[in-house]
Order: sequence, then structure tokens, then C-alpha cells
Amino acid sequence: MTPDEMHALVRRLYPLCRSITGDGVRQTLDIVGEYLPSLRAHEVPTGTDVLDWTVPREWNIRDAYIKDVATGERVVDFRALNLHVVGYSAPVHATMTMDALAPHLHTLPDQPSLVPYRTSYYAETWGFCLSEETRASMGDGPFEVFIDSTLADGHLTYGEAVIPGATDREVLISCHVCHPSLANDNLAGIAVAVALAQRLHEPRHTFRFIFAPGTIGAITWLARNRSRVDAVAHGLTLACAGDPGQIHYKRSRRGDASVDRAFEHVLRDRPHTILDFSPYGYDERQYCSPGFDLPVGSLTRTPYAGYPEYHTSGDDPAFVSPAAMGDTLDKLWDAVQVLERDRTYLNLSPYGEPQLGRRGLYASLGGRSDTKQTQMAMLWVLNLSDGGHSLLDIAARSDLPFAAVADAADALRDAGLLKELEP
Amino acid sequence: MTPDEMHALVRRLYPLCRSITGDGVRQTLDIVGEYLPSLRAHEVPTGTDVLDWTVPREWNIRDAYIKDVATGERVVDFRALNLHVVGYSAPVHATMTMDALAPHLHTLPDQPSLVPYRTSYYAETWGFCLSEETRASMGDGPFEVFIDSTLADGHLTYGEAVIPGATDREVLISCHVCHPSLANDNLAGIAVAVALAQRLHEPRHTFRFIFAPGTIGAITWLARNRSRVDAVAHGLTLACAGDPGQIHYKRSRRGDASVDRAFEHVLRDRPHTILDFSPYGYDERQYCSPGFDLPVGSLTRTPYAGYPEYHTSGDDPAFVSPAAMGDTLDKLWDAVQVLERDRTYLNLSPYGEPQLGRRGLYASLGGRSDTKQTQMAMLWVLNLSDGGHSLLDIAARSDLPFAAVADAADALRDAGLLKELEP
Amino acid sequence: MTPDEMHALVRRLYPLCRSITGDGVRQTLDIVGEYLPSLRAHEVPTGTDVLDWTVPREWNIRDAYIKDVATGERVVDFRALNLHVVGYSAPVHATMTMDALAPHLHTLPDQPSLVPYRTSYYAETWGFCLSEETRASMGDGPFEVFIDSTLADGHLTYGEAVIPGATDREVLISCHVCHPSLANDNLAGIAVAVALAQRLHEPRHTFRFIFAPGTIGAITWLARNRSRVDAVAHGLTLACAGDPGQIHYKRSRRGDASVDRAFEHVLRDRPHTILDFSPYGYDERQYCSPGFDLPVGSLTRTPYAGYPEYHTSGDDPAFVSPAAMGDTLDKLWDAVQVLERDRTYLNLSPYGEPQLGRRGLYASLGGRSDTKQTQMAMLWVLNLSDGGHSLLDIAARSDLPFAAVADAADALRDAGLLKELEP
Repeated sequence: MTPDEMHALVRRLYPLCRSITGDGVRQTLDIVGEYLPSLRAHEVPTGTDVLDWTVPREWNIRDAYIKDVATGERVVDFRALNLHVVGYSAPVHATMTMDALAPHLHTLPDQPSLVPYRTSYYAETWGFCLSEETRASMGDGPFEVFIDSTLADGHLTYGEAVIPGATDREVLISCHVCHPSLANDNLAGIAVAVALAQRLHEPRHTFRFIFAPGTIGAITWLARNRSRVDAVAHGLTLACAGDPGQIHYKRSRRGDASVDRAFEHVLRDRPHTILDFSPYGYDERQYCSPGFDLPVGSLTRTPYAGYPEYHTSGDDPAFVSPAAMGDTLDKLWDAVQVLERDRTYLNLSPYGEPQLGRRGLYASLGGRSDTKQTQMAMLWVLNLSDGGHSLLDIAARSDLPFAAVADAADALRDAGLLKELEP
Repeated sequence: MTPDEMHALVRRLYPLCRSITGDGVRQTLDIVGEYLPSLRAHEVPTGTDVLDWTVPREWNIRDAYIKDVATGERVVDFRALNLHVVGYSAPVHATMTMDALAPHLHTLPDQPSLVPYRTSYYAETWGFCLSEETRASMGDGPFEVFIDSTLADGHLTYGEAVIPGATDREVLISCHVCHPSLANDNLAGIAVAVALAQRLHEPRHTFRFIFAPGTIGAITWLARNRSRVDAVAHGLTLACAGDPGQIHYKRSRRGDASVDRAFEHVLRDRPHTILDFSPYGYDERQYCSPGFDLPVGSLTRTPYAGYPEYHTSGDDPAFVSPAAMGDTLDKLWDAVQVLERDRTYLNLSPYGEPQLGRRGLYASLGGRSDTKQTQMAMLWVLNLSDGGHSLLDIAARSDLPFAAVADAADALRDAGLLKELEP
Repeated sequence: MTPDEMHALVRRLYPLCRSITGDGVRQTLDIVGEYLPSLRAHEVPTGTDVLDWTVPREWNIRDAYIKDVATGERVVDFRALNLHVVGYSAPVHATMTMDALAPHLHTLPDQPSLVPYRTSYYAETWGFCLSEETRASMGDGPFEVFIDSTLADGHLTYGEAVIPGATDREVLISCHVCHPSLANDNLAGIAVAVALAQRLHEPRHTFRFIFAPGTIGAITWLARNRSRVDAVAHGLTLACAGDPGQIHYKRSRRGDASVDRAFEHVLRDRPHTILDFSPYGYDERQYCSPGFDLPVGSLTRTPYAGYPEYHTSGDDPAFVSPAAMGDTLDKLWDAVQVLERDRTYLNLSPYGEPQLGRRGLYASLGGRSDTKQTQMAMLWVLNLSDGGHSLLDIAARSDLPFAAVADAADALRDAGLLKELEP
């Protein structure tokens, strides 16, 4: 999948009115499934207990507007932009003056041309989001207010795609799919995840991609997969993957999980920011809750709430670029390669250095001072393969590229000098 | 007790001639007892073995001077300033020339107008302290030298005030009371301790205030309370609490005791200096000796020997200010509040985040980016309350104010989401 | 041994044609033995298995040259400089054109006036090293090429000198002796080791000096002394000890061995560089292989391959100076003194401070602010002698000179306040 194809996927998904339940999520998963045939949608009924939560009623919406009765014009129109309706708004059809309507209107006074994104999942209400400029142009009314929504028993929907690996140890990649027309948050993350899945070919780890509504979706997945979480060796939430900002990696709660150190390693020579874990942001909040404490970090470009377009109509497809999504994918791929190739070996000839020259592993002409990276990598792998250091540890300690260390280990293993230890 | 009342107490205590034993300490404790009715004076007889030491003879002094025989004038007069006599001077009454007197005179050549403070507790001698200016004005004599002191079997006196708490775990606050007319060192510390004691109301910890002569007093208290020290959860020596300098907190020998981390937390956004433990300074030397190793830090403004007026007549009541003592008390109070409110909780709903909204603990309208400190504090408390982190740990990790963290914990506990663990 | 005598030893050893085996090493050990009578040479037969290696055939060389047939002149002459022959060159006697000769010639194009040092221990070949300038002056030939060398079963030779100590715990000092005419690498190291050995007098540790060919020599020693390595308490490879550069100490693989901390301590106030361990450089590669993991660091001035003269004819006796070798010895001696005097004591009076004054260990006149280093050292030793801190730990923690700490400990031990714990 090329960067341009990722961006095309973002544009295709953009118009759908997603929420934590409802047909917008189903349509999204249908489209993702075209690119990722192993994707399966799961439907969990309203009222199902999931950890401390309960699956809520399903919300669907067909139309909504505020019409100026005097002119008959739709001042605010859901069909033009689905952010205009507060997510999970209850149905309403009434005529009212501005005085009555005002408490139901949400604007951004500091960003007067942008429409905010608001939801009210767990408190039944209704509302409209609009630009401060539109709000200022509205008179005293009366206004016809119409939200044609349904809030009823139904299902919560999430998608799961599994790329089987040579081992049962899993890499978990989780994207939230509950936001309506917001491109960076999180259609870009979905597109990068799809591109990663397409690129994987007979991996060592089993890769599990989860496309679920934020919070309640991850909680639902965790509730239904409690026996499976022990298999999660590494994980990541993937969000805000296409904005122009610098890459940010946020550590897992553990702080020194392999996934944390893999990203630190692959990002070390590139502009980036490493953030410590905090119990906020995306669904790492759930995966890293203390009962689970999974090794799940978070990869974004500009993180949660860190850009002016965040949760506004400014987060449209023009805000994300093919180049930025391609760059996110490149770095993610490098880190995945580290996780795929990381091993812990035992040096089978640990007393003194083994004679590498006899095995064809060492330049035969001595005395030269330009010792090559390959030979340094072999010496580091031999020296630190005492059972307490993985290849990633060795790369970090030696400040050599992981690939050089892994290549050296392959050569040494093939020469019978290393034995792989079980993880 | 207002800052002005603290300063008034300093001025009231200033004229008394304290030493490691004698009536000066008794009079000091009598006055402190007026402000702190629970104060009890303990009398320990001369010759009592206390740890490696022995309670010395009691020293009292009524008068002392150096009189110029030619003029009949008191050139140096104990009644004008009690620093003029070397502490624990043996009695003497003799007439002698300057040649004979000179070895008994102590001055500060680099601070010619100031009178030094000197003692000789454990080697029997006598001497006078005077300014270099006075010394330079004295001729060859003869001089009448008179010290009307008594060095005889008696008692060592120390005071102890206990504010009972809800638990037997103790906070120990220790002030040295052995210095004569030196205001910052340590009448200011005594005054701040008294003010703290007055402010405490039904605390959780039992607070024990010790007013004891330096070294031998703390050693005596420790010798008589060896079975009690296990109850000391947190402790502090309090000295030099009123000078114009910046606040300094010196860590306990352990370096990461709760009291150390409490002060680091409350001082972090204010000008301050944190010092590592060293086996010098005040009675933390005794409390932190390796056999006891109590979690006792030291709070001062400018520390031990760090200001020109230190151990000179320049350390008079004008050198300490109500504002500085008030500031010391404020910071001490903040740290005490941290110790009082610190707890370790267990999250009873550790799998995923509990649904805070259903319990009224979370704003119902989602999507807003200005997440409040209160909610962050709740999420941090839930995430880290795995039995391995106290509220103070959580405040340090989250960089949130301790009070916000503790308030969040109260709310979560009241909602049944947390269970307090035993210390 | 004075610095000038060390330099004289370097000059005396310089002309010998050392390699990893052969008479050059024997002659070197004979000369070193004149300065160090306890030195014993060990001869290990060709074919002996040593760890993963096998002792190679012995190499000796009598003469070698490239003669311009046209002029009869030796263009390259081993007798003028033994670097001219690639180490371990097989014998050859032939006449050939430059076309045929060229693959056997080694120069340094970027340093056209210098002759490189090259070896080919484990791949049988022959070759000459010469300056790029000489190479450029040579025509098309024909050339008479002659190497009068022998590559035959024989022995590997290494030297070992032991200075018995009061205990069986050993300090290992290892120098490589396999380089021909290179002064800094490693005749200077040999000279400093000899000077250190001469200076030791009834040490506490047993000191073992190893003069062995690089890699195979250390491996041979390790193979023959596997039961002895447990006695190695501290160790060092010593190389490049005479160049004008700054002192460098490279940590052992353990990173925090006493030898590492001893050098950090004695170097802290002098220009120096501390390097982390890496599995390259000198024979610390073997001593610190994971099976042995001995506490062996490496002391050099400019380290391995760090100076332009490295492994060239520029590394001649003029490149090393008596002053630099004297400086290396001074710092090495200071570190050795730390290792010799380091102890772990237990404070026998750990409850409160013991009364030092009564034992004559404390100035009797109190109140002075210029507390002396000696008294601070005593207080630190008493405070930290809880069984978990050695004197070196205490020096590092207190930032006091080790000698002051050790002197204080001696005084306290003599006063019966400390008991030495077994290492």
C-alpha cells in the first residue's frame, strides 16, 4: 500500500459518521476489510457486562439540522459535516428560540471558523456543534431543531484481523475507530495499520490488529480475551499518524518493555520525542491498566490534544499527508523488524573469544585499525550473550544498528557459536 | 502563632545562657511550656551512661568578666552578652597580665567587630570570647579575671512534647536547645517547632517534639527510648529556621525516605536546595547513626556554618525575621500535610479503567481537550495503586500536586474503588 | 625505576622483532627478567589446545628484503626496520616484476612517509610493509624478494612474575609483548609494569604480572590457569602508556568493579577520560569474555587506534616520553594504593556517634566552623561502616580523598571502634 493509497483510504472513510456503536463503525470495517481480508467484525449486544462497564445502546443517525424558520434555510446541517451533531445525541424535533437552543450549542470561541467535535455517550442529551462564526450570524430564532437519531438496544461492533505467525506470541496493534469525520484522529492510524498488515509476510510473531471504538471497545475486547492477554508480547496503540508533526512514542506503563526499547532504538538518530507513560491518551489506558499491565506503547505523530486542529473540523483529509503517513509506517516497520528479529542467545564458547578467523568470520589480515562494524557486532554479541542480554539489549549497549547486531548473531548462530534461549 | 509571635518568642529566649546542661535549658523549657502545655522536662543525672557517652557534670554560671585593674572597668562582661564566656568554663578568679591571659582569649580576626561562640564541654578549661576590636584595645594588664561558674554533679535536662495521633506511628521533630544567645541557631528553630505543634489538630501520626541539647541530648533521648524508635515513621531536625537565606532540606541517611520525598515534592516549584545526607550538622548525626538509621532529615534555611553570622554575636534577633520563620513554617506544614495524607491504596477495579462517569466522578461531555487536573489525578491514582506506589509516589510520578492526588484518592476511596493497605 | 630508566628500557627493547611466537618474545622476556628477577618464561608447544584456539607454529625471521635487481640495492630492508615484513610471513625467495609483487606490498597512502604494521598470523602468506614514498619510487622491477623466515613447530612463550602478598587475592597486570618495533604499543606498557613491580614492597594482594602475546597469549594463560582466575580480585591490561595524550581508563565488563571505582576515584580531579567496556582493544577482551568475566579494566594514555602513529613506524621511542610514562605510573600507583588499602569495616559502636573526644580523636574546643577533613573522614567512616560500604565506597560517597578515609579508618580501628570484615 503506497502512501497515496493510504491517503485515498483516509478520504474514503472520512464521510462516515462513526461513533462508539452503530452503522458508521460497521461501514468502516467493511471498507477496511476490502484491504485486509482476514478482518472479522464482532458484534456484542447492548447490556453485556464488560469489565466494570456495560455495552451501551446502539446509536444511529440519519439526518439532523437547525433550520431558521424565517428563511427555511438549514443553518447547521449534519449532511454537510457529521461533526455538527453531538455524538450520541438523543432524537429531537422542536421549534425553539435561541434562548432555549443556546445551551445545546457548542462552539470554539478561540477558533471561530472551526466546528468542534463533542460527544455525550453516557449522559443522555442532545446538541449541535458549529463554528463561532455561524453561531454569531444566527438571530433570535425561532429555529426548527431536528435530530433523526435512534438510541436503542443493538450491538457494539469491533474488528479484529490476525496474521498468523510462526509462534503464538503476539504483537497487538490497536486503533480506535469511533471518531466521525476526523482524518488524523484516527483514519490515518487505521490506514497505517492496514498498510503494516499488508506488508507482513509469514512473521515470527502472530500479529493481531484491533479496530475498536475507544475505551468501551478496548474494554470489550479485553473482557472477551482475558485468557489471551498473556500471549501479548508487544503492543501498540496507533493514532494521529498523519499530521505534519514529529513522531512521538509514548512508553508502556512498564517503561522498559521491548517495544519501548525497540522504538527508542530505531528513533534514536531521527527527530522524535519519547514520552513517559501517562494514564491518558488512547487505549493504552486500558491495556496498561494495572490488572493487565500489558507491554503496550503508543505511536503518534503529534500526540493527543497537541495540535490546534485536534477534535475540530480542521482535522480533515488535507491536514494529513501521504508523506507523513509513509514516514509513520517506515518507523513502525523498523520497530516491528526489531521485535521480529530480537532473540536472546547463549554464547556456547564463552571462555575467551572463539577463533572467528578459523570459521571464516574474521578478516585474516591483522593490524588494520578500521575494524568493521560487522566484526564489532560479532564481538559484542559474543561478549554479552550470557543469557541476560537480548540482541536489542546488545544493540543499545553497543550503540550499533540493531540490524548489524542481528546479522552478526545470525552468522554466529550459523557457525554453531550461539544457541537461542526461549523467551 | 503568628510570625510576629514567633519572633517575640525568639527575643524572649535570647538572653538566657543555655548550654548542654544547667538552668538556662530549664528556663528555656519553662518558657516553651507556656506555649506548649504538653511539654515535659526530663532530668537525667550526671554520670548516667547513655550509649557510648556519659552525662557530664552540670554547668551553671552567674557572672564573669575581665576587669582592667587600672581603670576598674569591665572590658569584657558576661552580663552584657553571654557569648563572652567559653561554654563550660571552669571557675577562675585571678589577676594576670595579658601574656598569661592571652591563651584564654578567642576572637575572630576576620570579623573584628563580632564575638565568637566557643565551648569546651569535654576538656576542662576556661576562656573568654571577645571581638578583635576589644582585644586590640586592651593593654598589657594587669587584668582581674573572674568566672563565677559551677561545674558539679547535677542533671542534663531535655524537653519532650507529644501530640497524640490516631496511630502510634510517630513524626519526630527535634531542636537543639544548647546554644546561648544565638537567635537563628536555634531559637528560630524552637519557635517554628512550637508554631507547628500549635497548628496540629488531631493528627493521624503521633507528633513528638524533642527540645534537647545538641549531641549529648539526642544521645540521651535515644538511649532512653531505644524501644520507641521503631515507631518513628518520619523525622526532622529543625535549625537555623529564621535567616534570610533560601530553604535547605538535607536528606536522611536513607536518602529516599518518605520525609525526603515529601520535602522534595513540596519544594519543587519554589527556590530551595536539596542536600544529600552527610554525617555532620545537627542531631540527624545521631538519629541517622547506622545502628538507628532513622528516617530523619534536616530542615534549615542557610545550613550549618553557611552564613558569616554563624556562631557569632551577629546571630542576634535582628538577623532572623518573622517573614523567614513564617516561610519555614509554611513549607514545613506543607510537607507535614503530605506525610499526614500519604497512603498506599489498592485499586479494587484494576482491569481496565472503572467507569467513573457512572459514579459521578467524570465530566459527562466528552471530546473536550482541557481535561482537568482532578480527572488526571484520579486516573493516575487508579493506574498506580497496585500496592507498590503510595500517593506520594504517584504525585512524584505524575508531577501533580500532592493535594490533588490525595483529594482524588479520597473521592475514589469513597466510591469504593480503593482499599487502603497497611503501611 | 625512574622515568628515564623506563625510557631506556623502551629503547633497549625496541629493535627486537617480536611476534606472537618466536625468539623476539624470548629475548624481550630475558631483558625484562633483568629488571624483574621473579619473571619466569613459560613455553607452550605448537598444537596445544587452548580454549577455542590452538597454539600456532613458531615464527622466526633472520633477514628479509626487496632488492632492485637493476641496482642491487635493498629498497626495503628488514634489518633497518622490522616492521617492513608482514608478521608471520612465510619464507619466499623469488625474482618478480612489480605487477607480481604489488599484491604483497602494504602502504599508508594517507601517511606517505610512514611504514605500516601488518600481520597475518592465521592465513599463510607473505608481504612487505613500506612507506608510500618508497613505493612510489620503485619502478617496474624486476625485484629480488627474500624473506628468510621459519614457520615450524615450536612454542608460544609468555612471561609471568609474581610478587607474593599477605593474602592470596590477586591483582593481575597484563601487557601484550607481541608487537615488533612499536614503542608506545606496547614497550611503554611493559616498562610501566616493570616499574610498578619494582615499587611494590610486601603488598597485601599477590601481584601477578603477565607478559604475553596479544589474544593467543592471554588465551593460553587463561587456559592453563582456569582454577586460578577465581583469585583475581582486580586486574588491568596496560598498554599505550607513554604517548603524549591524556590518560584513559576503560572499565571492566562488570562496570563497577573495585578497580573501576578505584581509577574513577584517583582520576576524578585530574584530566582523564573514563570509557565504558567494549569487547575490543587489548586482552581485556579475553579476561572479560563472559565465561571468565574478570574484574579487569584497561589503562592507556591515548587508547587503541586513537593516534595517527598507531601501528606505524611513527610509534618509535621518540613518540613516548619519560614524563608520560612517569605520569602513567603515578596514577596507576595511586589506584593500586586504593586497592591495597580498601577494606570493609563494621562500626562496633553504631548507636549514636561514639565519643571521639574521650579517645583523643576529636578536637576538644567546640563551636569552630572549620571542621577538619580528618574529622569528617572519621564521621563518614563511622556512619557508613554498616557492612555494606567499603572505604572506597565511603570515599566516593563523601567526596573525600581515599587516603584521608583510609587514615581515619586506621585511627578508628586502632581505637577499637571498627572491626574488619572478610572480603
